[in-house]
Amino acid sequence: MSKKKVVLGVDIGGTNTKFGLVDREGNCLATSTMETASHRPPGHFFGRLHENSNRLLENIGEDCELAGVGIGAPNANFYKGTLENPPNLDWDYVDIRAEMGKYRPLPLAVTNDANAAALGEMFFGAARGMKDFIVITLGTGLGSGIVANGALIYGADGLAGEIGHTTVFPDGRLCKCGRLGCLETYASATGLCRTVQELFCNTMTPSELRSVCFRDLTAEMVYKAALGGDPLALEAFRFTGHVLGMKLADSVAHLSPEAIIFSGGLADAGDMVLEPARQAMEEQLFPIYRNKVKLIQTRLTQGNPAVLGAGALIWSVLEKEHAQTS
Amino acid sequence: MSKKKVVLGVDIGGTNTKFGLVDREGNCLATSTMETASHRPPGHFFGRLHENSNRLLENIGEDCELAGVGIGAPNANFYKGTLENPPNLDWDYVDIRAEMGKYRPLPLAVTNDANAAALGEMFFGAARGMKDFIVITLGTGLGSGIVANGALIYGADGLAGEIGHTTVFPDGRLCKCGRLGCLETYASATGLCRTVQELFCNTMTPSELRSVCFRDLTAEMVYKAALGGDPLALEAFRFTGHVLGMKLADSVAHLSPEAIIFSGGLADAGDMVLEPARQAMEEQLFPIYRNKVKLIQTRLTQGNPAVLGAGALIWSVLEKEHAQTS
Repeated sequence: MSKKKVVLGVDIGGTNTKFGLVDREGNCLATSTMETASHRPPGHFFGRLHENSNRLLENIGEDCELAGVGIGAPNANFYKGTLENPPNLDWDYVDIRAEMGKYRPLPLAVTNDANAAALGEMFFGAARGMKDFIVITLGTGLGSGIVANGALIYGADGLAGEIGHTTVFPDGRLCKCGRLGCLETYASATGLCRTVQELFCNTMTPSELRSVCFRDLTAEMVYKAALGGDPLALEAFRFTGHVLGMKLADSVAHLSPEAIIFSGGLADAGDMVLEPARQAMEEQLFPIYRNKVKLIQTRLTQGNPAVLGAGALIWSVLEKEHAQTS
Repeated sequence: MSKKKVVLGVDIGGTNTKFGLVDREGNCLATSTMETASHRPPGHFFGRLHENSNRLLENIGEDCELAGVGIGAPNANFYKGTLENPPNLDWDYVDIRAEMGKYRPLPLAVTNDANAAALGEMFFGAARGMKDFIVITLGTGLGSGIVANGALIYGADGLAGEIGHTTVFPDGRLCKCGRLGCLETYASATGLCRTVQELFCNTMTPSELRSVCFRDLTAEMVYKAALGGDPLALEAFRFTGHVLGMKLADSVAHLSPEAIIFSGGLADAGDMVLEPARQAMEEQLFPIYRNKVKLIQTRLTQGNPAVLGAGALIWSVLEKEHAQTS
């Protein structure tokens, strides 16, 4: 009897790395977490990942065969199998393919976390059956993964899909990337907090948040205040969604997607962000695109979406190879 | 002996329709032009097109077989084979597939003129061998065709690729599409003329163009003045290129193309537009994309680029079908 095939999905984050075994149907058979500890050399990390994932494989009870490894990480390059100056990690450059090759002679694919999220939605989530869609991850920053003609767009250098660093207002907020007016400085958890400050300054709107200093303010606090009816917090969400929607009209004009799917902490606020985004997007759309594009929340709420996405990444590569050789 | 295969490439314009026979190597074996005359019903047009293209086929001397028909036209829908509210044409809606079906039981493909231009570059021009690139047509308006993973992006509705209607300045110039600040209102022949007016108003810069009224001003006049050293005309070109480059940075953040290729009348001004565009794009790019993307002029200077593009469109469909059945 042939063994059941599973893949290892890995999500490398600034503090912790999540990993798990994912089957072709999108079931997470087992997951675990370890410290990323990027102050130590990459070799140390990949050694521990090897040991920990072996243990996971032994522990699941079923007799499974590991068919490949998918890794999602910031600034990961699909074509080269490398990490290049990843934000929030101490490593400058990591040749993941070489590091993993020391342990497992297995198919490997890496890409950034938002691209992995897009593949997760395509294989297991809200984008099943779609050939043209965009996934936007609204967390600390704004990430994006773009699928057209049924394939993820990696671009000429493997680094396509940084909608968070397109310009909304040419003389707008300073972004940590050094540019002015990036979408990410408005539509993200940090962008929401910056908007709250702007409303403190520009309006007289009363708010319980006025007693919180900038350094202590979090998106969760703004969300809770908004749920409680705080008018300034509600306005901050409305503006965040509005700016997001304005800019999505540009993405639609490039790609004409069937849907734009949102995941990440800020997306959990649901219509508090998505409804003003819908309105602003429709207002800003070139007429031929109006009333066509769905804005929806992720459906990857079972299991770990980032691990599922990394699993989908390597499944997508395995199936493409299979299609080419059969 | 098997006959040489050729396709019919058709470019439907507001005034005239150009058509020609194109072989797989991108040679235009014969071309001709007829009036579009869209004040008469579409059936009249397609009847004349059938007669005229038959005559072309008889006249080329070689014993050729017509393998398919490709048509480029504004607002043409690849998936449906239709024209929907085409600008500059009197027709509301044309079912091209049905109209052509009355005459020729041949493979047919339609798309907008900029998409056809992109396929022309991929098959016969500057994008040969590239899998990720964008073509921008700088004429009266700004059209675009986007190729990723070696395939043209049609999007979910067949209408993707309207970079001309992305927003540069949220409260900028009124566009004929009804929106404010569209790229096309700056980076196009008409945008250039509007910029000249803005410079008349905002600066004291002397210019021979100050004696020309708005209605009479053409992009060609601005170009000639710039060639003669007119400082205001030169500044108008610089600003046009600058705005174009600013916005191209957004397209790169979506798609990370290997190159952006320019065709159309305004692109003939070459570095007068492309050099400020390059500078502004590099300044505005998210750091990981800097110094990678080539901005180049079309190399489809032999024959009619629009006819070649329409020919490439149907060649691309024929080859995809061939690949799927073999």
